[in-house]
Amino acid sequence: MNVIAKRRKIGVAVIGMGGAVATTAAAGLEILRLGTNRMDGLPLAHLSVPRMVQYEDLYLRGWDLNAQSLADAAVEHRVLPADQMASVEPALSAIRPWAGVASAAYCRRIEGANMHTAAGHRAAIDAITDDLRRFRDEGDFDSVVMINLASTERTPQASDAWASPEAFERGLDADDAAIGPAMLYAYAAISAGVPYGNFTPSTAAEVPALVELAQRHGVPLAGKDGKTGQTLIKTVLAPAFKARALHVDGWFSTNILGNRDGEALQDPDSLKSKLGTKGSVLDSILGYPVEDHVVDIRYYRPRGDDKEAWDNIDVTGFLGQRMQIKVNFLCKDSVLAAPLVLEIARVLDLAQQRGEAGPQEQLSLFFKAPMTARGDAPEHAFPVQERMLHSWLMADTAA
Amino acid sequence: MNVIAKRRKIGVAVIGMGGAVATTAAAGLEILRLGTNRMDGLPLAHLSVPRMVQYEDLYLRGWDLNAQSLADAAVEHRVLPADQMASVEPALSAIRPWAGVASAAYCRRIEGANMHTAAGHRAAIDAITDDLRRFRDEGDFDSVVMINLASTERTPQASDAWASPEAFERGLDADDAAIGPAMLYAYAAISAGVPYGNFTPSTAAEVPALVELAQRHGVPLAGKDGKTGQTLIKTVLAPAFKARALHVDGWFSTNILGNRDGEALQDPDSLKSKLGTKGSVLDSILGYPVEDHVVDIRYYRPRGDDKEAWDNIDVTGFLGQRMQIKVNFLCKDSVLAAPLVLEIARVLDLAQQRGEAGPQEQLSLFFKAPMTARGDAPEHAFPVQERMLHSWLMADTAA
Amino acid sequence: MNVIAKRRKIGVAVIGMGGAVATTAAAGLEILRLGTNRMDGLPLAHLSVPRMVQYEDLYLRGWDLNAQSLADAAVEHRVLPADQMASVEPALSAIRPWAGVASAAYCRRIEGANMHTAAGHRAAIDAITDDLRRFRDEGDFDSVVMINLASTERTPQASDAWASPEAFERGLDADDAAIGPAMLYAYAAISAGVPYGNFTPSTAAEVPALVELAQRHGVPLAGKDGKTGQTLIKTVLAPAFKARALHVDGWFSTNILGNRDGEALQDPDSLKSKLGTKGSVLDSILGYPVEDHVVDIRYYRPRGDDKEAWDNIDVTGFLGQRMQIKVNFLCKDSVLAAPLVLEIARVLDLAQQRGEAGPQEQLSLFFKAPMTARGDAPEHAFPVQERMLHSWLMADTAA
Amino acid sequence: MNVIAKRRKIGVAVIGMGGAVATTAAAGLEILRLGTNRMDGLPLAHLSVPRMVQYEDLYLRGWDLNAQSLADAAVEHRVLPADQMASVEPALSAIRPWAGVASAAYCRRIEGANMHTAAGHRAAIDAITDDLRRFRDEGDFDSVVMINLASTERTPQASDAWASPEAFERGLDADDAAIGPAMLYAYAAISAGVPYGNFTPSTAAEVPALVELAQRHGVPLAGKDGKTGQTLIKTVLAPAFKARALHVDGWFSTNILGNRDGEALQDPDSLKSKLGTKGSVLDSILGYPVEDHVVDIRYYRPRGDDKEAWDNIDVTGFLGQRMQIKVNFLCKDSVLAAPLVLEIARVLDLAQQRGEAGPQEQLSLFFKAPMTARGDAPEHAFPVQERMLHSWLMADTAA
Repeated sequence: MNVIAKRRKIGVAVIGMGGAVATTAAAGLEILRLGTNRMDGLPLAHLSVPRMVQYEDLYLRGWDLNAQSLADAAVEHRVLPADQMASVEPALSAIRPWAGVASAAYCRRIEGANMHTAAGHRAAIDAITDDLRRFRDEGDFDSVVMINLASTERTPQASDAWASPEAFERGLDADDAAIGPAMLYAYAAISAGVPYGNFTPSTAAEVPALVELAQRHGVPLAGKDGKTGQTLIKTVLAPAFKARALHVDGWFSTNILGNRDGEALQDPDSLKSKLGTKGSVLDSILGYPVEDHVVDIRYYRPRGDDKEAWDNIDVTGFLGQRMQIKVNFLCKDSVLAAPLVLEIARVLDLAQQRGEAGPQEQLSLFFKAPMTARGDAPEHAFPVQERMLHSWLMADTAA
Repeated sequence: MNVIAKRRKIGVAVIGMGGAVATTAAAGLEILRLGTNRMDGLPLAHLSVPRMVQYEDLYLRGWDLNAQSLADAAVEHRVLPADQMASVEPALSAIRPWAGVASAAYCRRIEGANMHTAAGHRAAIDAITDDLRRFRDEGDFDSVVMINLASTERTPQASDAWASPEAFERGLDADDAAIGPAMLYAYAAISAGVPYGNFTPSTAAEVPALVELAQRHGVPLAGKDGKTGQTLIKTVLAPAFKARALHVDGWFSTNILGNRDGEALQDPDSLKSKLGTKGSVLDSILGYPVEDHVVDIRYYRPRGDDKEAWDNIDVTGFLGQRMQIKVNFLCKDSVLAAPLVLEIARVLDLAQQRGEAGPQEQLSLFFKAPMTARGDAPEHAFPVQERMLHSWLMADTAA
Repeated sequence: MNVIAKRRKIGVAVIGMGGAVATTAAAGLEILRLGTNRMDGLPLAHLSVPRMVQYEDLYLRGWDLNAQSLADAAVEHRVLPADQMASVEPALSAIRPWAGVASAAYCRRIEGANMHTAAGHRAAIDAITDDLRRFRDEGDFDSVVMINLASTERTPQASDAWASPEAFERGLDADDAAIGPAMLYAYAAISAGVPYGNFTPSTAAEVPALVELAQRHGVPLAGKDGKTGQTLIKTVLAPAFKARALHVDGWFSTNILGNRDGEALQDPDSLKSKLGTKGSVLDSILGYPVEDHVVDIRYYRPRGDDKEAWDNIDVTGFLGQRMQIKVNFLCKDSVLAAPLVLEIARVLDLAQQRGEAGPQEQLSLFFKAPMTARGDAPEHAFPVQERMLHSWLMADTAA
Repeated sequence: MNVIAKRRKIGVAVIGMGGAVATTAAAGLEILRLGTNRMDGLPLAHLSVPRMVQYEDLYLRGWDLNAQSLADAAVEHRVLPADQMASVEPALSAIRPWAGVASAAYCRRIEGANMHTAAGHRAAIDAITDDLRRFRDEGDFDSVVMINLASTERTPQASDAWASPEAFERGLDADDAAIGPAMLYAYAAISAGVPYGNFTPSTAAEVPALVELAQRHGVPLAGKDGKTGQTLIKTVLAPAFKARALHVDGWFSTNILGNRDGEALQDPDSLKSKLGTKGSVLDSILGYPVEDHVVDIRYYRPRGDDKEAWDNIDVTGFLGQRMQIKVNFLCKDSVLAAPLVLEIARVLDLAQQRGEAGPQEQLSLFFKAPMTARGDAPEHAFPVQERMLHSWLMADTAA
């Protein structure tokens, strides 16, 4: 007698559902459901890992301060060519973001009317928890995963409230200003047993209080800040320079981008958060400080949702002779990011099935500032990260 | 009682001793012997592998069709700044290339008067063998390694003479035109028990006859075509594109270089050899044919010994969206190549100490078209090659 | 009493009507007729020159070896976004190329079935002349202009038949192989009193026989080879280097393009014609030979109708110090070329109204290899060419 | 009887004599005096303008806060290769800067001990005037010209003291803080009848008070901010985009430089002055505001005195289609600037011979923010500026 296993069906609750990345990911899932054999950009598509949920069984919904439908968001972000847009328009029109939790103190530039009128941290958490429960029930999902794709928040002052679950609870009761929206979402997810991935540079699940809480609740975590364009290239090239003993004297990186994320980064506090996750990558890989490592990000509207990076690298080789490498990456932020979001959701769900909790280091491959299990220094070298993830996945394949 | 082990001293017999790469390597060794703590560009400098010969115990001498001293060659190639030149001038002045073996049929562009007047293959081999023996004796070396750094030869028509050692012997007797100078040198090395590395694209030790001969004589081989600039970058980036599932639609590579090697490549036959070793790298790494993979090499005098590569890469990501990456590498060919020559010599010597014979796959990291033990498809991905070499070296560290 | 002058209406007979440039130009005219206030890319749009025909009074039709409608050609060349395509689809569907005159000996790569079965030069000319007459009558045009946009022909061997109108006539009678299709079209135009512009590098109206014939018939000529991308940049930058006394040591130019024109240039003979018109520009502007001026053109399909140029320029400044400039132009060939075609047609018609005949030097601004009145060396510096054209037009404004 | 005219001999009094530009200029003059036929980088070298002083009759001396000899400065700035350095070392060793006038309020970053201990504006002016007189007398010069090459000062608050010569005198008496060091030097020059050129972005002779004073004293003025690298390219390309009606949607410019000037620009106030002179160029040439014109300057030590600019330009062409141009300029700031300083000095001296006073518009070619006679909007287009200067010089040739 043949038993056909029921296919696992997962809901992905996204913070920042109306943004370009989430819209692209949602549109992509609809196109995959319509049937296509092009799996470009999906890093794990060619692997056979039986327990990992299939792409077409992922459903993205979530919160956004802007209430417009995903069809309207897709038009605004211009993430799809006309023919693709036509094919998914009906599906996207039906998706409307849930009211979100926000704080002007954490993210000045981005505004929207689609907001919970929750008074205080506890009320906000209740609202998020209700949304998660309703999402799971209505979607009849085997499990739900939360991914943060919201605009970058400023980095809050470190606070005692982050030190332990207990201190965090007291901070929630006291509406501590050091607990921002991203942390509220992360707390709600962990408390509800929902795996949480942070694709943004905002401070969230990496504070000790939430890592500890995740361990207690058996909830896998991943983060932070998706590695898409320039940092991707950086973590690919730097290991090669090290392998060839080419000393990196300086690395000048400039980024131009014109979408809503770029606009949010015009707030110097948000920009600081972003630059923070970009900074330490090089020194970590090379094993010495690159004193002239400069990273600029500029809002430049003609680029739209496309993104462009220009890197100049100065290296010293044999006999002290100097050479230069310039890299110009004309990329599409959402197109690079969206498939990573899907893979992170799939791996987080698999980790939960495997009973793993806390930071999932094997997901380092997808992050600029990978979370590590015991707060160790993260691995940044792309090839090493790739081996880490494949080893972890292969363990499951064997089983 | 403490016994101080006598340090191993190795002679490196170089074909093309007056070229920019060999001159840079020889000058670099003199500077290392004068004492410096800058080991930039030497990939294995930071590893502790006890039996591997130290850099300052390597001595480069060899053949060149141009009889000028290495000091004169260094001035011509402008490989050293004035202060470094002054410090090594006495040592380089004393080094004069030995008369070489050449064939206008194999390399049209490069001429020189410093030539053996050997009549036929056997006489040429005898001359090379005599040079090797004299070099070893006069230098009092523990061992000698041969490295081919000569200008690129045209690719000869495949010949029956390459099929087996016996056929090759008959080919030598018959002065078979399919046996070119690079093969004569390789044959002489193998017959004399001298490990042989081919840093050029010329056809040499990789023909079955010589691989088999090397196995019989217990001689390690390595090759071919040093991986320095553009192909290095290619084998670093391509694995990352694969890991991110970014489909490579096309890769346009152009190279401009102005030194003697560049001039030699103006001969279309030599150019063809060069392009040959560059071509298959991408398809091998990616696992599918990149139909629009174009590689141009142009002689452009203003670049001098510096070399410049410009690559344009077209990739398709999620939802069929296309992106571009451009890489502009302003490099110095000899500065990148010379330290690899030293490492290849050190590893070949260590392999011989370990009793290994035939193609040394662990040296793939340094070659565009790595030789493999049983003629398998070579590994081209830079990070995988790096692991192969390190594993091999670590085995020796343990011992 | 107010007299409203009837607006001048001009037919433009295009050789190569189905190509990307002609299709773009025709589509652009339809969009202008539909009404738009964006005149981007039209160099003379902001000038008020009363007698010059207005854009919306230009009508493009012509010959092509491929019989598909312009709507189909527009789809194939992907020259228009979906919304623009929809708006002009009805108009373009109605336009079908006339059967053309071709010769496999002159352009190997491009084939098509839409060909005159004319036997011999005289019959071909008769067919072209009939087309011109029918075009003018059916369109009720005030005048007709011919523009060559066909694929590049190989450069024929210089022939005595080119020396004078009389020799040319004898050549026609004898079906002289040195008279190619481009010359047949030019001869037919001139004989019919139709101004002729050559936007391709093919040899046509610049031979002495046809220049003389144009003078006799009072027909204005212009050519040759439209200056769109890399050569445009070259003739803009080189005068500045000269003005700053920066000596150009070398200029390396590479082009990648993926459209039908690029494919045609895979024929080495066509490529040679193309490179010919690109070569002398620099030396002419700078006043000394740039010995290392290298121009490469490569067919690279991922680029499609887009075109990309990468230039590296080496200059020497004060005290012999060297600097480099790199220019990467990501352009769209047809988008740059099509408006120039319209301006050339307008200026040629105005020249005929002004009674001018033979080469129209004031059109140098639009050509890589400008024709000059008495065979003088042409002016290549972009700013000087611009002044020449503006002075000529201003003369008409005054009148 | 032949009368050999005595050759005109000019002293150039430089503010910032120890900087890289002044050092390069002084070294260059010595090399020219030693005899060379390479006039690369000197824009007016090929013109024959009889009354213009010859290069080898220019003598540079001046003020600097750093007292080191020019030979030491040349070593520090690494502006000369070893062989050139050896040839001019004796001459440069003999040149020591005069004590300068400075203000920490105007330029925070740069310090030095070689300072006048002048108390107040009047004392400072007296010291400068004494230096000028002594310089002229000791050098036996026909005339003296002053050029400002000092580090960029912050832009002071506009002040009533700038309105008229009389108000300025009162400001001097009151030690008005709105009168900075650059203005004190300019005032001293004008009062002494010494032509004044401002190669920096600092506020100096362009205030109405000093323009008027220059008119009264018959003193020619020129400025401001030398046009060397990125802005040079900008004013060359922008007129071509306009001529082709390519609409500039955005222009992103980033600069990396590592010398003392770059360090000074780390002071945000100095940077603001610098960006100020770069900003308006584009809009002025194009005739419409480029809303996304971004200019970044970053201090990046590996670049040293070399300078690198990367520009990305987005343009819209025919039918609204968009294209991109990227320009990467690897230049040497001092090598580009030094010859312009010499030309400015020569033209200012010629202007004084011709009896011209106030702003010399014909020198616009050499400045980012050209001064104009009556405060009109300056001409920024490079080709137009070039014609202006040549016409002015030709007038003298005729005479």
